[in-house]
Amino acid sequence: MKKNINQQFVIGVDFGGTNMVVTVCDVNGNVVSHIKEKTLRWESKDSIIKRMKILIDKAIISTNFDITEFIGIGIGACGLVNYNSGHFITSPIFPDWKEIPLSKEISDEFQLPVILDNDANAASFGEWWVGAGKGLRDIICLTLGTGIGGGIILNGKLYRGANYNGGELGHMTVEPEGTKCFCGNRGCLSLLAGATGMKERFMKKIKVGRESKIVSLVEGDFTKITAKLIYKASKEDDILAKEVIDETTRYLGIGIANLLNIFNPEMIVLVGGLTNMGNDLLAPIYKEAEARTFPVIYNFAKIAIGKLGDKAGSIGAAGILKFALLKEKQI
Amino acid sequence: MKKNINQQFVIGVDFGGTNMVVTVCDVNGNVVSHIKEKTLRWESKDSIIKRMKILIDKAIISTNFDITEFIGIGIGACGLVNYNSGHFITSPIFPDWKEIPLSKEISDEFQLPVILDNDANAASFGEWWVGAGKGLRDIICLTLGTGIGGGIILNGKLYRGANYNGGELGHMTVEPEGTKCFCGNRGCLSLLAGATGMKERFMKKIKVGRESKIVSLVEGDFTKITAKLIYKASKEDDILAKEVIDETTRYLGIGIANLLNIFNPEMIVLVGGLTNMGNDLLAPIYKEAEARTFPVIYNFAKIAIGKLGDKAGSIGAAGILKFALLKEKQI
Repeated sequence: MKKNINQQFVIGVDFGGTNMVVTVCDVNGNVVSHIKEKTLRWESKDSIIKRMKILIDKAIISTNFDITEFIGIGIGACGLVNYNSGHFITSPIFPDWKEIPLSKEISDEFQLPVILDNDANAASFGEWWVGAGKGLRDIICLTLGTGIGGGIILNGKLYRGANYNGGELGHMTVEPEGTKCFCGNRGCLSLLAGATGMKERFMKKIKVGRESKIVSLVEGDFTKITAKLIYKASKEDDILAKEVIDETTRYLGIGIANLLNIFNPEMIVLVGGLTNMGNDLLAPIYKEAEARTFPVIYNFAKIAIGKLGDKAGSIGAAGILKFALLKEKQI
Repeated sequence: MKKNINQQFVIGVDFGGTNMVVTVCDVNGNVVSHIKEKTLRWESKDSIIKRMKILIDKAIISTNFDITEFIGIGIGACGLVNYNSGHFITSPIFPDWKEIPLSKEISDEFQLPVILDNDANAASFGEWWVGAGKGLRDIICLTLGTGIGGGIILNGKLYRGANYNGGELGHMTVEPEGTKCFCGNRGCLSLLAGATGMKERFMKKIKVGRESKIVSLVEGDFTKITAKLIYKASKEDDILAKEVIDETTRYLGIGIANLLNIFNPEMIVLVGGLTNMGNDLLAPIYKEAEARTFPVIYNFAKIAIGKLGDKAGSIGAAGILKFALLKEKQI
């Protein structure tokens, strides 16, 4: 890639439980370089952080830019973080990690400013900066994956909460007596409508003797069951799979309606794996949400699918760094 | 009252379904005069608005200040409003009122700037300005009355939503298959934990043959049943009343936990009639909320009872006018 010393660039890291993604953007969010590797979360903390450093280094080298052309590194991480101190506090994905000074570790390595935020905040910010919510003022983002996260952008600013733990939208109750979640609550949206929850509900039904063609499809190896497989079977009239999908879209509709009534946003942006399943999955979600929202609020809001795909988190992390550093609009 | 031409004053109106309250404050929120009258909501729109004008006039006269000493009038009204245009859009309390230019009507009468907001927003703003949340940045307010409303103050600003209908916190779902609400949703917090909902649930149980000493207490006149009476009977071991109270505190705990996980605020402020019932009612609400919230969020937040009593809405309406006019911090 041709070197351009007139521009400045930002590095964004999406540090997830499955993948680490590093994206280099210019200060307007245009992607210059993008690389991805497995997180291998069962490895030691030191080994994972080392691999993150190597991946960032690879991304820098791939651009052929001098290190002086980078303004800093933004990280969106899959856990509770302290945005102010740059500590990774804790996460159900890395239960051994406690109060890790991740920003400092990365900053020391590259001698660049580093900002650490939550991965769902980063993805939301990315969709607001250069994605589906570009140019809007108030958007709420739901990240639909293994679990469900969220981000809140109000008045064009990411709202982080009083001690940086706001936006835990997946931990709204949608079923008061539902299954217990790691967060302490019962019947959380994340647990009931995330991919893991879908699989668990499916297995629970199988275990009480219900039948589904998925069982023979995976040849009895239940570890092969995925949310995608359940969705596919539901389209082929598998009654059990359809039941799980119907429950999921209903819970998502309830969650979205709550967010609409609470925030009256311009847009709800849905990002993550589940949104790839197409309109057959989305239409019943919208229908349920509409039935549960004040018309004056529902009719004003747009529900949109994210535009940045698996780059939302890394681009957003880069954007958070840029806005924080340039103090343009961001707190 | 002694006239003091060095000060400026603000008029705040709390326009509720039961009462109209007018409070005159100085620009720091100190109450100078406070009067209250029945709304008589079954009367015509013109007659109600006329009575509002008379009440404002009475309040002005009671202060003995010259009209030039007032900077304007803030109104908090029990319905959907357009903060920008000053129109009262609609309300379940006044189903015939559609798109009424209430700000203009009052402004024309007194030749003063008028701002119209939602009554729950006004009460929340009051508690933030000079009440329980004074000096804080992020507070969420729940108004517990006949129904349940709410207000959102983030970064020291009232968040109104994209078309001024945000903060409908009472219309979160807390029981997915609960009773149908006027808003379109089912199992809304407002419907299940508001005073009307408590009475309705109590009556539903009576109608299927359950027994309670309240029935003989009101001598069979079910219109005499109040939330307060149910609470009192629950303290005297009336099993049915206790059941209704337990359901109510559980729903409120779920709703508060949702707000904590979504906003990670510094404080949740509870205002309205239900908060007068004392700690025996509040303790189980807090317990339920704690069990359903991330500890890192719950332990950081304070749950407090409002300090302004039935003046919260009128003082807050005055505050909204003042901040909007002086453009100090308010959008």
